[in-house]
Amino acid sequence: MICISDAEYRARMRAFQANIRAAGLDAALVHANEADFAHVRYLSDYWPTFEAAGVFVPATGQPILLIGPESGAYAAGRSRIRRIEKMVEYRESAEPEYPGIAVATFKDVARKAMGARPLRRLGLVGYSVMTLPVYTSLQRDLPKTELVKADDTLVSLRILKSPMELALMRRAFRIAEKAVEAILAEARPGMTELQVIGIAQREIYRHGGEYEGHALYCFCGPATNNAISRPTHNRLRRGEVIQLNIGARVGGYSSSVGLPFSFGPLPERKARLVAFGLEAHFKTMSLMKAGVPAAEVVRKYEEFVQARGFARYMLYGPCHGIGMMEVERPWMESVSTYALAENMTFQVDTFFQDRDFGLRWENGVRVTAGGVERLSKKYMKLVQL
Amino acid sequence: MICISDAEYRARMRAFQANIRAAGLDAALVHANEADFAHVRYLSDYWPTFEAAGVFVPATGQPILLIGPESGAYAAGRSRIRRIEKMVEYRESAEPEYPGIAVATFKDVARKAMGARPLRRLGLVGYSVMTLPVYTSLQRDLPKTELVKADDTLVSLRILKSPMELALMRRAFRIAEKAVEAILAEARPGMTELQVIGIAQREIYRHGGEYEGHALYCFCGPATNNAISRPTHNRLRRGEVIQLNIGARVGGYSSSVGLPFSFGPLPERKARLVAFGLEAHFKTMSLMKAGVPAAEVVRKYEEFVQARGFARYMLYGPCHGIGMMEVERPWMESVSTYALAENMTFQVDTFFQDRDFGLRWENGVRVTAGGVERLSKKYMKLVQL
Repeated sequence: MICISDAEYRARMRAFQANIRAAGLDAALVHANEADFAHVRYLSDYWPTFEAAGVFVPATGQPILLIGPESGAYAAGRSRIRRIEKMVEYRESAEPEYPGIAVATFKDVARKAMGARPLRRLGLVGYSVMTLPVYTSLQRDLPKTELVKADDTLVSLRILKSPMELALMRRAFRIAEKAVEAILAEARPGMTELQVIGIAQREIYRHGGEYEGHALYCFCGPATNNAISRPTHNRLRRGEVIQLNIGARVGGYSSSVGLPFSFGPLPERKARLVAFGLEAHFKTMSLMKAGVPAAEVVRKYEEFVQARGFARYMLYGPCHGIGMMEVERPWMESVSTYALAENMTFQVDTFFQDRDFGLRWENGVRVTAGGVERLSKKYMKLVQL
Repeated sequence: MICISDAEYRARMRAFQANIRAAGLDAALVHANEADFAHVRYLSDYWPTFEAAGVFVPATGQPILLIGPESGAYAAGRSRIRRIEKMVEYRESAEPEYPGIAVATFKDVARKAMGARPLRRLGLVGYSVMTLPVYTSLQRDLPKTELVKADDTLVSLRILKSPMELALMRRAFRIAEKAVEAILAEARPGMTELQVIGIAQREIYRHGGEYEGHALYCFCGPATNNAISRPTHNRLRRGEVIQLNIGARVGGYSSSVGLPFSFGPLPERKARLVAFGLEAHFKTMSLMKAGVPAAEVVRKYEEFVQARGFARYMLYGPCHGIGMMEVERPWMESVSTYALAENMTFQVDTFFQDRDFGLRWENGVRVTAGGVERLSKKYMKLVQL
C-alpha cells in the first residue's frame, strides 16, 4: 500500500511551525476525534478511535502527540510523532476514571514542549470540534496564556495536495467506483437502502480501503431531496430516483462518487432534472482552472442554472474541498475570497432538490493550470437499470 | 423493524425534565456529533451526520432540536421533536458560510423555549464532546446564564434499559454473532485485517443493521495487545492470536462480540492466556446480579485474576456500560460507587495483554434479580480453525 513518507510528515511539521511563528503564536494545539480525525492524522498519522487526540506543536522544537489513557500501545505503534502523553481530557465520552493510570496535565505538556520559552499565545486548530474538557483544562492550567483560534495555520497546508496525497486520493476514488459498480450489478427493487450500503462496504474493504470515506448514502424516493441524511430500511422501488454517494478512505484520504439511478424509466419531470443536473455538473468542471476566483465559478454556475430555468431547485454552490475529510475547506461559495490553485482538490457536488425528490452528482477533481484532472469519471452518465 | 415508540420518547422527555428541575436547572442543552450521537438520539431519534446537533430542553414546556444548516429536510423527516432550529454552531467542521441561509442564535432559542421564564442555570449534557463554537456562543448570547456540567440528568435515565431498548440490543447482538459466523467461515491466512472487516460490514447491513456498532476490530499478531487500535493491511497468519471485536447498531443500539481465534494451534504460552481469559470472562458474569456493588465485582474479579497468577497481564476492570454507544456509562471500576440494578446492561470486557500479544473476550449481559441474561453467548468458546 502507498503511504505518506516520514520525510513528508517532517516537511509538514516544519511548514506548520513556520505558519505558527508567522501568526505570532508561541505554539498550537491541534484537535481531532473519531469522526473528525484529519488535523491530527495529517501531522502524526495517528487516527483516534473511541478516544480523542491532540498534537501540541511548539513554534520551534519537538511536538507531542496527546492521546487518551487507553491508546498508549496503539499510538506507539502508529504515530510518526515519537513523544506521546496520555491525558484524561482525551478519554472516551463514557468518562472512565482509570484509577492508577498516570496522566499528564497541559502544564506538564507545555513545560516539556516549550522548555524555558514563554507560552503567551496558543493557537487552537480544529476549533470547531475542540471540546470543553480540553478548553477548560487549558484555562485552568495555563491561566496567563491567550487562546486564539488558528485553524488557518494548518488548513492552508492541507488545501494543496502533494503527489503522494494525490496518489492516495486517486486510489480512494477508484475504490469508490468499484463499489458503485458492484451496487449497480447487484441492487434490486425490494432491497433496503441499508442493504445497498452493505454491498459498498464489502467492496471498499475488499479492494484496500481502510474505512468508509464518509457516512455512505443510498436513498430512494422522497428522502433524495435531503442535502444530508442517513439511509434507512426503506426499500428500493421502480421508477424512483435512487441516490448513491459512495466513498472510500485510503491512507487517510477520502473519496465520494455520487450519482442518481433508477430501475426502469423515470417520470419526465424527474428525468429532466436528473439530466440537467449532469449538464450543470460538467458546466462546473468547465469553469475551473488555476487562477480563477472561486466566487467567479459560483457566480457563473448560478447564472447558468438560472438562465436554464432551474434556479428554484438549487440549494447551494457547486464545490467543496476534499482530501482527508470528504468535506473539508475550502468551500466554494459566493462569498469566497480565494482563487483556485494547481493541486487544490474539490468535490464537484451538484445537488438539485424538488419538493418530493432530489439528485446529486459528485465527482472529485484536481485543479490544473489548464482546467481539471477528474479523479473519478466512470459514473458521469445517466444510469437506468 | 422494531423502533422506539413515540410514547417512549415522550416519557423520556418527561423524566429528563423532572431531572432538570430536581437539579435546580432552568433548562439543559444536550450535545452530539457524528461519532458520539447517543444523547441527542435518545431524546429525538435524530442522528447527525457531517454536522453536529443539540437539544435545548426547558425545565417545563417544549424542547427544540438544534441542527446544522444543511440538515433541515433530514431532521424534519426523522426527529420526534417537532420544533427544529438551524444554527451555525452545528455546521460541518469545514465551516461553510452559507450565505443567504437563516440561522438562529442561542438567544433566539432560549426565548422560544423559555418564554418569559428566567434562564439562570443551564445544564450542559454531553459536556465531554461539546464544542467551542457552542460554548463561546452560549457565553456571548446568554452572558447572565450560569453554565453547569449536567450529564447525570440524562445519563441516569439511559443506564436502565426499557423492554423496547432491550429488544433492539438483543437484535444488535444477534447480528454481530451472524457477522462473526461469516468471518469464521470465510477468513483465510493471507487475508488482510481490513478485508475481514469487509465481511463483517456486509453481514451487518445484510441482516438489518443500520451501522457498525463501533469502529470494528480485527488484529493479528502484536497489535492484539492494543486495548484500542484500528485494523490495517496486516495479513492474517497461522499460529497467531487473531482478535475480533464485531458490533452492529440497530435502531440506535449497539452491540459487540469479541473473541480471539487462530488458524491452527497457538503456542502454549498464548493458548494458556486465551483459555484463562475465557475463564475470567465467565467469572465476571458469575459475580453480577442486581444489588451487588459494582466495585465489589471489580475487586473480586481482580482477586480471582491475582490468585490465579495472571495479574501482570491485566490492564483494567471487567465491564463497561453498553447501550446506544458500545461504550457508555457506567464503567465498572474499583472506584465505582453504585450498585448493579435490574436492566442495567454491561459489556463484559475481559482483556489480557502480554508484551507481544493480547486477547479480549466481549459479550453483553443484562443484569437480573438473580444474575445476568446473556445478550450474546454463541462465541464464548475457544475457536481454532
